[in-house]
Amino acid sequence: MTQSDKSTERYQQGWQILSKLNQPAAEQLLDAMQDIAPDLGRFVVEFPYGDIYSRPGLDPQSRSLITIASLTTLGHSKFELKAHIHGALNLGCTKEQIVETILQMAVYAGFPAAINGMMIAKEVFAERIIES
Amino acid sequence: MTQSDKSTERYQQGWQILSKLNQPAAEQLLDAMQDIAPDLGRFVVEFPYGDIYSRPGLDPQSRSLITIASLTTLGHSKFELKAHIHGALNLGCTKEQIVETILQMAVYAGFPAAINGMMIAKEVFAERIIES
Amino acid sequence: MTQSDKSTERYQQGWQILSKLNQPAAEQLLDAMQDIAPDLGRFVVEFPYGDIYSRPGLDPQSRSLITIASLTTLGHSKFELKAHIHGALNLGCTKEQIVETILQMAVYAGFPAAINGMMIAKEVFAERIIES
Amino acid sequence: MTQSDKSTERYQQGWQILSKLNQPAAEQLLDAMQDIAPDLGRFVVEFPYGDIYSRPGLDPQSRSLITIASLTTLGHSKFELKAHIHGALNLGCTKEQIVETILQMAVYAGFPAAINGMMIAKEVFAERIIES
Amino acid sequence: MTQSDKSTERYQQGWQILSKLNQPAAEQLLDAMQDIAPDLGRFVVEFPYGDIYSRPGLDPQSRSLITIASLTTLGHSKFELKAHIHGALNLGCTKEQIVETILQMAVYAGFPAAINGMMIAKEVFAERIIES
Amino acid sequence: MTQSDKSTERYQQGWQILSKLNQPAAEQLLDAMQDIAPDLGRFVVEFPYGDIYSRPGLDPQSRSLITIASLTTLGHSKFELKAHIHGALNLGCTKEQIVETILQMAVYAGFPAAINGMMIAKEVFAERIIES
Repeated sequence: MTQSDKSTERYQQGWQILSKLNQPAAEQLLDAMQDIAPDLGRFVVEFPYGDIYSRPGLDPQSRSLITIASLTTLGHSKFELKAHIHGALNLGCTKEQIVETILQMAVYAGFPAAINGMMIAKEVFAERIIES
Repeated sequence: MTQSDKSTERYQQGWQILSKLNQPAAEQLLDAMQDIAPDLGRFVVEFPYGDIYSRPGLDPQSRSLITIASLTTLGHSKFELKAHIHGALNLGCTKEQIVETILQMAVYAGFPAAINGMMIAKEVFAERIIES
Repeated sequence: MTQSDKSTERYQQGWQILSKLNQPAAEQLLDAMQDIAPDLGRFVVEFPYGDIYSRPGLDPQSRSLITIASLTTLGHSKFELKAHIHGALNLGCTKEQIVETILQMAVYAGFPAAINGMMIAKEVFAERIIES
Repeated sequence: MTQSDKSTERYQQGWQILSKLNQPAAEQLLDAMQDIAPDLGRFVVEFPYGDIYSRPGLDPQSRSLITIASLTTLGHSKFELKAHIHGALNLGCTKEQIVETILQMAVYAGFPAAINGMMIAKEVFAERIIES
Repeated sequence: MTQSDKSTERYQQGWQILSKLNQPAAEQLLDAMQDIAPDLGRFVVEFPYGDIYSRPGLDPQSRSLITIASLTTLGHSKFELKAHIHGALNLGCTKEQIVETILQMAVYAGFPAAINGMMIAKEVFAERIIES
Repeated sequence: MTQSDKSTERYQQGWQILSKLNQPAAEQLLDAMQDIAPDLGRFVVEFPYGDIYSRPGLDPQSRSLITIASLTTLGHSKFELKAHIHGALNLGCTKEQIVETILQMAVYAGFPAAINGMMIAKEVFAERIIES
């Protein structure tokens, strides 16, 4: 990833959104990708955040909740779900909205997916109490 | 399903919510289940709607959008996704919110899931123009 | 698939089990594979049926029900689920056992998967009434 | 979760079944949910166990095996699969029935899902030898 | 999608690759998206094709085969799988390579996913005989 | 698994391929299965490797890459994905081909699946540097 890559409007816009959402997790991801697939790190900034989250038509809190719904449904991405629950809280979502979102997934993705999602939310909420 | 089953508070509350969301689809489902598994029909009214959608902590429009996110992610339930897109519109969600929700799923569930979801939204939007 | 391939013990044993389970669906599958991937047809006879279903330790009806559970959970294989519901009935499973199996999947795979499975069971039950 | 919630017939019936299946895992789940989403714990008792597992039409051992089939197929819920393998043994399923159920999932959900399920069964069987 | 959007290097590069892969399917998709989510159509051109398929490090035929592997595994996207099997043939993959790719998915995603994928390949191969 | 089982042509052929791909992981799997489901270990040797990987029509490196694509898409099998990334390197695939395969999965299976796959590739690449 060259310096110039980071200067595009898409990257700048994506990073601005991503760093508000969850800067430590974003930096951790970009660092982890640096020596193996830096472009995957760059694409994460550019496409999901630069191209999608930057769009009007859906407020940032709603974007966070639908992401939590999707990750809870998928069931295989604990790291990402954790990062997005932190992100949702950073953007002003309430714990209750997050809990209700995960709980509702019991209906569509089954109870195990919802329970696993809730255990991750529990970890996140505990981390934030310790930090505060 | 006996008459008395329908008189429980959970069933009444669930039906009230479900019939506002999408009464024709709900009736179609209950009818289809009648001769094979009427209790599955009853459980749909009682658990997702009576127990979950009736909860405070998340507004009805947000509940619709996270459901659309989950069903788009699952990818295998065209009928349910169609019914919930109609439902979201019935509850006052905008077409734009629905389109943005499905579009964002490209990030988490992949482009094919998002494209398939969008094709279903297109069908729903077309049906509503014809009906109106 | 050469004639000799069909003479192996695994193939013979698999075909005996498969033809009791659902001979028309098995023949339809083998015919469909004949001009594109006959070995996939042969593998279906040999591995699932010759190697797995032929094993002691689980009775044939239970093997049918766990297959219905898995296919309902996967959600993407209507043809196979239909064939296995017919098969379960052929082996003496009751309609009630099949309905209960699919219904219980609402807990683990979500309501949409269970509803879709039940709609397929409904089709199968209707076909058998017409045939009888 | 108020005391009165636990006094409903659905909760009582569900708890009776769940506590026979796997009381330590059930208590661990309810405890974990207590401070974040106690109603998810309550719903687990009421819906899967109070409403579904309590139904006639399928014997308890078969209900355990189809649950193991579904969880092995899903692949993302190690904790739940472990709890249900313990539960199946508690209800009198043989190790052989459990092994055969997981093995057969290689056909429908693929070898990796079956291997992962078998590794979890191996852990459970080892725990029970140590305990006994 | 404004004219200027199509003039970016990413779009131009993506379209060049996509139109070689399967121009009729690409045009059908862009047309279908035009009145509901034209940006999803644009993103398909820009991200998968402009950003990913344009990369060195993996030849175009291998990119086609891994896409067929992924879509067969997902199991929910018949339209996309069909388009990519046509695309693989257009890029010079042999029918045998495609058949072997789908067949191997029986190991990882299960037999139903492989059989469904093979049925779609069969449709594609039949269409190409008719067209030729 | 009796000695005679290992003497079949399918087993011999499968073991030859599997031991070239990743002998330590294969032995670890067979050992783990020995006391719970030795036949699952035997089936892994016989079916995926003896029956499928031994086929002409697709070169070994391509078989490795489509397997990596499928396992990245499934998202639930870290052990198997790790073993197959080692295997791909053993067969002469380049790190770049593996990275590109996993990266492309962002398009079909979503970014979280691709990121998780890349983290596993990173672990494998690090292990090989330490070993060398």
